[in-house]
Amino acid sequence: MDQRHESSATSASGTATKPLHCIVKLGGAAITCKNELETINEDNLNVVSAQLRQAMISGPFHGMDWSRRPGSLEIPTVADNFDDQSESGSKKFIVVHGAGSFGHFQASKSGVHKGGLSKPLVKSGFVATRISVTSLNLEIVRALAKEGIPSIGMSPFSCGWSTCERNIAVADISTVFKAIDTGFVPVLHGDAVLDNSQGCTILSGDVIIRHLAEHLRPEYVVFLTDVLGVYDRPPTEPHAVLLREIAVQEDGSWSVLKPKLQDTSRQVEITVSAHDTTGGMVTKIAEAAMIAKLGIDVYIVKAATDYSARALNGHLREDIPNDWLGTVIRLAK
Amino acid sequence: MDQRHESSATSASGTATKPLHCIVKLGGAAITCKNELETINEDNLNVVSAQLRQAMISGPFHGMDWSRRPGSLEIPTVADNFDDQSESGSKKFIVVHGAGSFGHFQASKSGVHKGGLSKPLVKSGFVATRISVTSLNLEIVRALAKEGIPSIGMSPFSCGWSTCERNIAVADISTVFKAIDTGFVPVLHGDAVLDNSQGCTILSGDVIIRHLAEHLRPEYVVFLTDVLGVYDRPPTEPHAVLLREIAVQEDGSWSVLKPKLQDTSRQVEITVSAHDTTGGMVTKIAEAAMIAKLGIDVYIVKAATDYSARALNGHLREDIPNDWLGTVIRLAK
Repeated sequence: MDQRHESSATSASGTATKPLHCIVKLGGAAITCKNELETINEDNLNVVSAQLRQAMISGPFHGMDWSRRPGSLEIPTVADNFDDQSESGSKKFIVVHGAGSFGHFQASKSGVHKGGLSKPLVKSGFVATRISVTSLNLEIVRALAKEGIPSIGMSPFSCGWSTCERNIAVADISTVFKAIDTGFVPVLHGDAVLDNSQGCTILSGDVIIRHLAEHLRPEYVVFLTDVLGVYDRPPTEPHAVLLREIAVQEDGSWSVLKPKLQDTSRQVEITVSAHDTTGGMVTKIAEAAMIAKLGIDVYIVKAATDYSARALNGHLREDIPNDWLGTVIRLAK
Repeated sequence: MDQRHESSATSASGTATKPLHCIVKLGGAAITCKNELETINEDNLNVVSAQLRQAMISGPFHGMDWSRRPGSLEIPTVADNFDDQSESGSKKFIVVHGAGSFGHFQASKSGVHKGGLSKPLVKSGFVATRISVTSLNLEIVRALAKEGIPSIGMSPFSCGWSTCERNIAVADISTVFKAIDTGFVPVLHGDAVLDNSQGCTILSGDVIIRHLAEHLRPEYVVFLTDVLGVYDRPPTEPHAVLLREIAVQEDGSWSVLKPKLQDTSRQVEITVSAHDTTGGMVTKIAEAAMIAKLGIDVYIVKAATDYSARALNGHLREDIPNDWLGTVIRLAK
């Protein structure tokens, strides 16, 4: 494991540590209400948090959010039988979330992604975007902690990550590595960051995941979204076909293995979800293919369903059951 | 400036940048209600934010918090005349805040400061403490942004800062430096961090300030607290005397210059505020003396008063007016 990450982070004990099990993307469209400004889809987030806990932790667990809710006088209960327990078995996960109805308004109003920090509007929008996305991050960290997941919010900006011409320039993963190595679950997010060429930009959750996957080599990556998976055309159109399995060649090209499309020469319109201003679906599938090219399975699946539970639990790593709905993107055998 | 910081951060343009003007500590007791769990002292925070804006920014300003309040349906107004303006003049500030009634409950319940991350209670408390202090951080960033201060929340944990035997081991300031260099106001806070020797601990805001002051050499440092300054005994006791000026020698020893104490041989009981579990007043005064030893004036003053406004504006840098109440700690001339 140690040779795979780019920094000087090492296990505190110096012993070999369990490798990273999984990176999970909580898609903005799956955990927020996309048409309501800064509104979390509480039902989905709660189910997703419970599914993540089941996938990560075997054994007893306790709530780790001991804070008041804003506006509430109620003080959360803290369990008092911690000392009776040994630590539960747990698999190492990293969570990355998108912005959904958080951040996009502020970013698009000000054009943060286009840079130009000397303009007061862009500078203000940068601050406003970070307030919005870090608010969402805090809520997700709390939802996970409530379920007993030792979640730690980590903003790419604070981690010192920056871009050049909107591609990652500096993204030292040593702090993320140390967090997983000590048993925490880092929760990162798409963020406004500094850009060496244009001043600032938006670093998307998908780009973050590819970077983390490249350096930390998880066993698999799960994208939780608001539709069943990748379709051959926008899923709202009649006769849209869910692509069940996509094979990626070592040169990065890819083809649909399942189902057999009638017209294989036709360029499929790749659509997972409509709510994304940081690159759209072509970026999304390209990022997934780049991860699959590393030999890491990628599952794109509808959040808060039985399908997502099975994907998170790693039940798809050998054969993909016929009764599982979603899209698997993996290296061609 | 560039030779003063420890990392490879340089101005993007390569030109000399204005040095750091001031580091401000927002004491936990000044900005939270100390006896009410996780309750912000909104009145004080609003006045402090306005005073900070006046000290930092000359010229027009606009609110930079464009997010909904939790539970509110109201969408904040975004000004539409940004493009008519050139950027306002601004002085470089860093804000560091304490925890007050945030974080302390979670930290003391679990003993995070004593380490032992393999214990489920400590690990949970670490997560719970970070949720509480980052909630406060977000609220402070929002209050400052609302006043037009380009505030950026930066958690020491996310910045990769860690300790060894509870002293700072790794605290790369390059991200903080880049943030101030590009015109933002970093807002840091006391945080739960990893410790190389005992697993984890609490890194206090005061220790963070000393570290930043050492490497970034601000012109002065202001501690905003809930009493007028440093007294010769607990300020609630009768006949407590406010120490107006303390002179620090190059060897770190210090003496009270003003007022002339009747019994100079008596060891004064140093008391600024009672609400602090991360070291108490002896630590606080020792940290301030270590900053003063560097030739940087330290002002300890009651938040949200005319005295704090004058301290933040740098009006005390030559002579200390007789009608100013607070404590100045500076290198003996």
